[in-house]
Amino acid sequence: MKNKKLLIFTFLIFGVTWSQDSKNKSVNIDAKVSELLSKMTIEEKVGQMTQITVTIFEDRAKPGYFDAAKLKQGIQDYHIGSILNVPNPGAPTLKRWQETQTAISTEANKTRLKIPILYGIDAIHGASYTAGATLFPQQIGLAATFNPSLVKRGAEISAYETRASSIPWVFSPDLDFPRNPAWSRMWESFGEDAYLSSQMGVALVSGYQGNNVGSKYSVAACMKHYIGYGSTTTGKDRTPSIIPERILRQYDLTIYQAAINAGAKSVMVSSGEINGTPVHASKQLITDILKKELNFQGVVVTDWKDIIYLYTRHKVAESNRDAVRIAIMAGIDMSMVPEDFTFYTDLVDLVKKGEVPMSRIDDAVTRILRMKFELNLFENSVANLKDYPKFGSAEHIQEAYNAAAESITLLKNEASVLPLSKTEKILVTGPTSNSMKYLNGGWSYTWQGENSDTYAAEKSTILEAFQNKLGKENVLYAQGADLEKEDEAEIQKAVELAKTASKIVLCLGEKNYTETPGDISNLYLSSSQIKLALALAKLNKPIVLVLNEGRPRLISDFENKMNAVVQCYLPGNEGARALVDILYGDVNPSGRLPYNYPKYPNSLEKYNRKYTESISEGEQNDDAKYEKSYSPQFEFGTGLSYTTFTYSNLKINKSEITTSEEVNVSVEVSNSGFKAGKEAVLLYLTDNVASITPEFKVLKRFEKISLEPNETKTVKFTLNQKDLQFVNQDLKWIAEPGTFTIQIGNLKKDFSLK
Amino acid sequence: MKNKKLLIFTFLIFGVTWSQDSKNKSVNIDAKVSELLSKMTIEEKVGQMTQITVTIFEDRAKPGYFDAAKLKQGIQDYHIGSILNVPNPGAPTLKRWQETQTAISTEANKTRLKIPILYGIDAIHGASYTAGATLFPQQIGLAATFNPSLVKRGAEISAYETRASSIPWVFSPDLDFPRNPAWSRMWESFGEDAYLSSQMGVALVSGYQGNNVGSKYSVAACMKHYIGYGSTTTGKDRTPSIIPERILRQYDLTIYQAAINAGAKSVMVSSGEINGTPVHASKQLITDILKKELNFQGVVVTDWKDIIYLYTRHKVAESNRDAVRIAIMAGIDMSMVPEDFTFYTDLVDLVKKGEVPMSRIDDAVTRILRMKFELNLFENSVANLKDYPKFGSAEHIQEAYNAAAESITLLKNEASVLPLSKTEKILVTGPTSNSMKYLNGGWSYTWQGENSDTYAAEKSTILEAFQNKLGKENVLYAQGADLEKEDEAEIQKAVELAKTASKIVLCLGEKNYTETPGDISNLYLSSSQIKLALALAKLNKPIVLVLNEGRPRLISDFENKMNAVVQCYLPGNEGARALVDILYGDVNPSGRLPYNYPKYPNSLEKYNRKYTESISEGEQNDDAKYEKSYSPQFEFGTGLSYTTFTYSNLKINKSEITTSEEVNVSVEVSNSGFKAGKEAVLLYLTDNVASITPEFKVLKRFEKISLEPNETKTVKFTLNQKDLQFVNQDLKWIAEPGTFTIQIGNLKKDFSLK
Repeated sequence: MKNKKLLIFTFLIFGVTWSQDSKNKSVNIDAKVSELLSKMTIEEKVGQMTQITVTIFEDRAKPGYFDAAKLKQGIQDYHIGSILNVPNPGAPTLKRWQETQTAISTEANKTRLKIPILYGIDAIHGASYTAGATLFPQQIGLAATFNPSLVKRGAEISAYETRASSIPWVFSPDLDFPRNPAWSRMWESFGEDAYLSSQMGVALVSGYQGNNVGSKYSVAACMKHYIGYGSTTTGKDRTPSIIPERILRQYDLTIYQAAINAGAKSVMVSSGEINGTPVHASKQLITDILKKELNFQGVVVTDWKDIIYLYTRHKVAESNRDAVRIAIMAGIDMSMVPEDFTFYTDLVDLVKKGEVPMSRIDDAVTRILRMKFELNLFENSVANLKDYPKFGSAEHIQEAYNAAAESITLLKNEASVLPLSKTEKILVTGPTSNSMKYLNGGWSYTWQGENSDTYAAEKSTILEAFQNKLGKENVLYAQGADLEKEDEAEIQKAVELAKTASKIVLCLGEKNYTETPGDISNLYLSSSQIKLALALAKLNKPIVLVLNEGRPRLISDFENKMNAVVQCYLPGNEGARALVDILYGDVNPSGRLPYNYPKYPNSLEKYNRKYTESISEGEQNDDAKYEKSYSPQFEFGTGLSYTTFTYSNLKINKSEITTSEEVNVSVEVSNSGFKAGKEAVLLYLTDNVASITPEFKVLKRFEKISLEPNETKTVKFTLNQKDLQFVNQDLKWIAEPGTFTIQIGNLKKDFSLK
Repeated sequence: MKNKKLLIFTFLIFGVTWSQDSKNKSVNIDAKVSELLSKMTIEEKVGQMTQITVTIFEDRAKPGYFDAAKLKQGIQDYHIGSILNVPNPGAPTLKRWQETQTAISTEANKTRLKIPILYGIDAIHGASYTAGATLFPQQIGLAATFNPSLVKRGAEISAYETRASSIPWVFSPDLDFPRNPAWSRMWESFGEDAYLSSQMGVALVSGYQGNNVGSKYSVAACMKHYIGYGSTTTGKDRTPSIIPERILRQYDLTIYQAAINAGAKSVMVSSGEINGTPVHASKQLITDILKKELNFQGVVVTDWKDIIYLYTRHKVAESNRDAVRIAIMAGIDMSMVPEDFTFYTDLVDLVKKGEVPMSRIDDAVTRILRMKFELNLFENSVANLKDYPKFGSAEHIQEAYNAAAESITLLKNEASVLPLSKTEKILVTGPTSNSMKYLNGGWSYTWQGENSDTYAAEKSTILEAFQNKLGKENVLYAQGADLEKEDEAEIQKAVELAKTASKIVLCLGEKNYTETPGDISNLYLSSSQIKLALALAKLNKPIVLVLNEGRPRLISDFENKMNAVVQCYLPGNEGARALVDILYGDVNPSGRLPYNYPKYPNSLEKYNRKYTESISEGEQNDDAKYEKSYSPQFEFGTGLSYTTFTYSNLKINKSEITTSEEVNVSVEVSNSGFKAGKEAVLLYLTDNVASITPEFKVLKRFEKISLEPNETKTVKFTLNQKDLQFVNQDLKWIAEPGTFTIQIGNLKKDFSLK
């Protein structure tokens, strides 16, 4: 007892000290920013707000290397405050990054005020633009782990390896909230649930930024893409979204609020429009809601070219200059211009003519300078490589492997066809079975990730992971199909080989992509792959379907002929090893699907649908007869194990609460099978009657536990008043009296709010 | 000149007289309503608000005939004010309708106040619940005519034949605004354009109600389904819609405003929810916007069981009684209960306990009584059949034929494969080629329209229309496929027969359906039909694809193998004759597609998309390379002719206008081909820059003209300030200074607003 008290005491002291420290530091930074700002000219201020892509400064004759005159012009003449992106031809080594950043830093040091350049990068699953970095599963896979501490640890490693590349700022996490699963960046999100997304967003922000974002092992996070970017109606990238404010507040904004509370230093604005207003032109969304209401104190940066696009694409501005005025007055702090200096020229002119007040400029520059001080860039903007011995180390790789292993999701396992036995003859086939491109997806070494096989040559593809486990001679292989092109001869080769195998591992999925190149008009898996699946199915041999895809491409044309289905998502460089370990039972799968996997292209209901989208009460027969009935291929939260978990004794401490009380929930979870395993325990809540039609059920809590065979653990959750609330018609968060139902596993318990 | 002045003078006098007359009549009715209301008990008032389905009063032993005691109970004990629907087994003769209404009228005359019963019916394409009535194309086909006067004339005939059935009230027009083409009631709407919908809605209202809705040849219209019903996110019937208020105002509400201005007497409320609020529970939508802002003075009736559903489906009410309170306080005037008297009992109790104020009840009953007086039901509630000699007459049938002929839309005609020649041997095949069910669709004789072949036995199916034109022995026929069930043998029969034909007319489409039974999860045409099309295509014979469908089922798997494509929609009883006359060139097609026909299931862009959904300027190559590029199978407005029309001399009277001026537009249209034809001339407008991202283009005017070969006509349009406006972020209709582009045919002209 004494010890415990001491601990608490120490913690309090430490807390106070730390907090005081942090406060002093903050006051100190504010003073520095204020002093620096007072010395700056209009041009120097506007320059700080200007972000340019690094390749603009390259020597055309020597890709990847600077043209000194161009770099000097950008930094000295245009006073630019930020640079982004990766030198040609992509993914430099640590040493090349160091040289690049040294050149930039040296030039910045020659300016009048010696303000360091803020360098930003799309390192979204590890330091993905640095050769030799540790690459983790993409975000959709992280969501599937349902394990925030694992995710946070991964972000710490990403931060370490990014700072090792002399880069202090990552354009991550992605807090998009996809409403159409066809969206080409579905895989960059945490899936379709707002609570899961906010928990995972907080994990990434905390991991990236650590306790001190100025440390040489931390980077500033950038939440993106504020807001509504992932919710386009048609699913095409950068097309219009329709999100009424009530719904925006109930879902999308909660994810940002959580990440802001976790201290996220910057935010990138959505390239899209909501209800007809481009977000880059919305003072309501950027200034009134984000900066004022959510009290966001960090930097608001545009996405690629998005101020220009207000003029050329969105047609809300009469000219580039008009677009600059609109965006800056909406609350933009920094423009990812990024290929010229028009933004700088226009904004200087607008300020000089009084069309943009200096107060707006000072707000922007204050935020940018504050971030530079917080990142300690004035002291340390180039990495000392000796500080980073763990870059790409076995320790880091193991963490990426662990994340992949906990993300991979077993969706179906008929008659326990899995795990495989090493004595079985396996045919590995399918277009995604032998390339790193499909394991990593986009934003890997390059924008579209087309060079993963070169950069990650020493990593294992799925085929190679099989060969490593069983010996090359023991694995049959045929590609079977191209991702797009139909080739009957290839199918026949695979079918012939399959005849000599005892089981087939069929790897299907998608090409590497992101953004517009990933747009699709048809959610079905490509027909070349469907044909391969159907041809193999005719053999009546057990088939394990391995999905390697960024979004749920429809498989309903052949799913009933597959004996097992394993969703890999985009598991990164260690993904194939993890997958094969799972297929052979060396690892027990524990991922859960973070979205509804649809069965048909025009039936894209989410799991937290309304009652009217489910089979209606008392009308089971009618609705089941028609196609209205809700029937995804696999529902959100689906995830099988090689052991069995039993839920019992769901208890709540009160069956009736007041408007100031919490509900304590406990449930016992037992491993009733024969294998140790991990289980993400999910708590769903249903508000039985509400003035806004309630969701069928909605995720409120989750916890991932490990259980040995015959072991039982009690999992405890506390629901608070906020958990009972929704946004009503007047845009207020309220809880209404009535009954609520808690659901964990197949157990349910009601309580009421007085 | 003198004559002209006289005419104007006469018109003015007549106008004043008429208006004075109308005003007197209205004052007179108000006085009568007020007097009657003052005599009514709470129970009598609530009874007026109660609508019951007619089958509830039937004698179980004798379907279609009343159980006198049950009818007495409903009318005497529950004081019900309205009855709807059709006696078993559906579609009575005029005489049976007369007997039914006489029984109801007789019972109503025995009540204390002798208030007549208001009978309502889903007569949506003619008096579709009366045997022998003239059945017109469904609404989507009417929209395709682009000919409001033709549509109005059809509504006059519908009104005539409905009143002949002693029914004074039709649940039409449908003013839904479908945003997802998969919606099962797409065909009940006027398609995807708000302006076209409002023009056609006004035509139907004017046709139904005439100059005097109390005439024995007029019926009261019922706009439906207020509001947002047709815009469900998933496309499934009665599931949630997401429509921000700005967008609701810019599109959906304008259609209702036009129909209200045209005098529509009643409105039916949407069974769905918008942004989480069921419309039946929305005081904002029903009372504040519809009754107050749009100044709607008529009756607001629920849809089927929708007050009960607030409790059982939407979960916004704690009980049935709670649901009644919510709906009545939202502004509902009449409840389509429709199978019991719970509504009556609950509402009487709510009023007695002061939970619903008498003022709300009096508002509702006043509206209902006013409509009964306006319909002259106190004087005339049962038809004298001698007054209706034209019921089902050749004259009426000819109008239905004309409407079908102007609706059918030629979408493709490669190498002029159409028109057919009578000397060619034709194979007619496909599952929709020999049934009236698929020509009429739902709401035909019965709810789902499954008995059209019995009721319309003497009408021609597509096959029969061919046989009538060519002689039975000159037409080859094989069904080829079932709509759903795959049958290789049937396909083979068709293929064999096709070998002996010179051309193939392939009739594909959909089963008869409406509402939930019409829900689909996959917009592709059924695979049994796709297989038939692909099998026939292998013969390399010319194929004319005839589409007979309520919504655009995807044909991209085989469309490139079809030489001609003809969209019939659901053309009604005279549709097959019109189709075959078009196929042989006896009628020149003039329909235009009232929606975008999509190519892929996850690419459902509308024609008035935003720029960001089109190929972006200066980026043709990139966007065309990816699947982002906008490419419907057939665009809104597509419609070919057997002649060619040439547009020239697009002129506007001013290139710059002030905020109070109009723009006069003229264009010359010539028939430059060799056949007389009709052409719908469409005027599109583009606002080049606006604070809400402007539409790529939007329809503002249209006019259908007839031209003989070599004839030229000048078509004139006037655009007013309202045409330049949109709803801005503050929910205000505004026009912003800047340039606008007018487009007619391939001609464009700019003007600017100062």
